[in-house]
Amino acid sequence: MSGWIEEVRFDARGLVPVIAQDSATGTILMLAWANREALEEAVRTRRGVYFSRSRGKLWRKGEESGNIQELDQVMLDCDGDAVVYRVRQKGGIACHTGHASCFYRTLSPDCRWRENSPVLRSPGEMYGHHGEGASKNETEGRK
Amino acid sequence: MSGWIEEVRFDARGLVPVIAQDSATGTILMLAWANREALEEAVRTRRGVYFSRSRGKLWRKGEESGNIQELDQVMLDCDGDAVVYRVRQKGGIACHTGHASCFYRTLSPDCRWRENSPVLRSPGEMYGHHGEGASKNETEGRK
Repeated sequence: MSGWIEEVRFDARGLVPVIAQDSATGTILMLAWANREALEEAVRTRRGVYFSRSRGKLWRKGEESGNIQELDQVMLDCDGDAVVYRVRQKGGIACHTGHASCFYRTLSPDCRWRENSPVLRSPGEMYGHHGEGASKNETEGRK
Repeated sequence: MSGWIEEVRFDARGLVPVIAQDSATGTILMLAWANREALEEAVRTRRGVYFSRSRGKLWRKGEESGNIQELDQVMLDCDGDAVVYRVRQKGGIACHTGHASCFYRTLSPDCRWRENSPVLRSPGEMYGHHGEGASKNETEGRK
């Protein structure tokens, strides 16, 4: 069955935003992007697979950190231009910073970003010597 | 306080993707976009405010349907290029189709999109005479 992918409306770059959500807790883990190939591989392999815009290639989440995502469900929105992956996040860490979720900053009443959760594992531990000095541009492929 | 907005990395169009999540249940309601003005107004008014790409203007969610979103929290991701609005969805309906969530389609094991939740209110009821024949291009501003 491949008709399902025809319902997905990729943007001019061939990408669609994908929200990864913990299927047990409902926590939003990250927002990333997928192209057609990434979505098809995700569904076929039941893993969180994305397209890294910074690296320009498929990004099999966890291939460096070991923190893979087991894919439970895929959901599509009304317009077909946004996707949700409901996943079980291995290691309990989705973010390359070592936080459980990439959305670890919450705006406080006095309008400052405050961390809402701790670092569970240092990037250095997760990625070895590449972990500490990563530039912004590298992070998307390394989450 | 306006320093918080400087942490948000808008794309080349001046937009950032915003995930609206029900703050009580964790259900992901929709994915939309915000520009700087929309984010600032959302935080100031404590409402779900977006930027409609199809209409090219601010979109105060619920201004047509009455289904406003009360904003509980704003979260920012590690790269600063994605936002979560945690909201209380008035009327219990976020989607212009009348479903509670825009993500009302789940991929079944045989790879077909199946509706995972019912239509709670018809678009005709929500939007009056404009509701039924809406084109795809109009939907974003009318969710």
